Amino acid sequence: MSKKIQHRLYVDAALPGDGSLTLGPDQSHYLANVMRARTGDQVALFNGRDGEWASEIAAVQKKAVTLRLESRIREQRTEPDLWLAFAPIKKARLDFMAQKATELGVSHMVPMLTRRTIVDRVKTDRLFANAVEAAEQCERLNVPTIGEPVKLEKLIADWPMDRKIMFCDEDLTGTPAHVALQAADNKSNPRPWGILIGPEGGFDDHERALIRSHPNTVVVALGPRVLRADTAAMSAISLWQSALGDW
Amino acid sequence: MSKKIQHRLYVDAALPGDGSLTLGPDQSHYLANVMRARTGDQVALFNGRDGEWASEIAAVQKKAVTLRLESRIREQRTEPDLWLAFAPIKKARLDFMAQKATELGVSHMVPMLTRRTIVDRVKTDRLFANAVEAAEQCERLNVPTIGEPVKLEKLIADWPMDRKIMFCDEDLTGTPAHVALQAADNKSNPRPWGILIGPEGGFDDHERALIRSHPNTVVVALGPRVLRADTAAMSAISLWQSALGDW
Repeated sequence: MSKKIQHRLYVDAALPGDGSLTLGPDQSHYLANVMRARTGDQVALFNGRDGEWASEIAAVQKKAVTLRLESRIREQRTEPDLWLAFAPIKKARLDFMAQKATELGVSHMVPMLTRRTIVDRVKTDRLFANAVEAAEQCERLNVPTIGEPVKLEKLIADWPMDRKIMFCDEDLTGTPAHVALQAADNKSNPRPWGILIGPEGGFDDHERALIRSHPNTVVVALGPRVLRADTAAMSAISLWQSALGDW
Repeated sequence: MSKKIQHRLYVDAALPGDGSLTLGPDQSHYLANVMRARTGDQVALFNGRDGEWASEIAAVQKKAVTLRLESRIREQRTEPDLWLAFAPIKKARLDFMAQKATELGVSHMVPMLTRRTIVDRVKTDRLFANAVEAAEQCERLNVPTIGEPVKLEKLIADWPMDRKIMFCDEDLTGTPAHVALQAADNKSNPRPWGILIGPEGGFDDHERALIRSHPNTVVVALGPRVLRADTAAMSAISLWQSALGDW
């Protein structure tokens, strides 16, 4: 591919399929009217399964942009298996958290309802839309999956046996994250993990005891300052990626 | 202090001074009209030098709220000596970066002009206002200082001899941050450091060579995904804090 990619889109369809792809109304509108794409423009496509494909716009109609698939430009790669379970926060910060968590490489996000959770309705389609937008921009080859909101107690009761828990407990000072994480796992063949981030105001004592009592839990410290929930999530993902992920 | 702190403010004045403090018009307006504070409310004060002080509102006027200092509730503590030099980005993301960098514990921020820097005017007073707001919320006892915008070449030419450079080079994969940082320094008695974050689009080859040629530079990897400048800054600060700072 010597031609320059001008747009990048996540699609659901198999790639390359029959070599041609007509986008649905929303993506067609985005390309044709928002991005003012034209016939001949280069569009990279990914679907989370078939790698990244170069395509060229063959026809532009208002509600139907047709792409001609050209060649695979990247093989599908495996992303780290890292969940992020978070107590929902206000809309702007939630959008932001979904975008940043996608950029930083989580595989699955799940809204977690806690006693101090203020926001109890979560639009999972909006979370997914934010994740798609971030994946398109950061050159990921897949989009994190989004779970339905679940109560903390149920999340912990159903937690998979083989998945470790990175618990960022506000009250703790002590072991730095990379030390705690590396004592619990091995970067050369890491286990699946999930990060638990509490609400603004923190988990209550009952919740903290519940999380700490799980045999898979590893407690890490995020320093002496009070971090907002979205900040704590980004820090925790970064520390996990550096210690055990693909950074 | 058994009474509950309701507000937290950064002030310039010495604490406790003569035991009484009248706030200027902006902070008085904020307390009286935005926060609807009343006589008797508890306000925590910090100035970056004298620890944190409990005070009580003695009188509320629209443009002059008077506080009566009560007792020191926290001793001043030393924050890690960590600079963040960043290429300015668009306003909303810049506000956000200043807030998050403050929460995460940088001591000094400096806007750095590079060849691919798109935004070349930076309101340093706005950066400082964002830092103050974040410091008040995250219970820091000081506010990061803000430098005047400086060209990358001059920043590197004038770089202090004893200060290490954490350079997040996009093109690199390799040594994880905590390994690279700990090979270069020691948490029990860390040197001063500065993090360099490039513009969206990255440093150009000349700039990358210049930074890499500095004897104090330590190159770290932030993984295979393309991170936005604000995300990269937050990740880098988190990794530094965990490896060498006070986390």
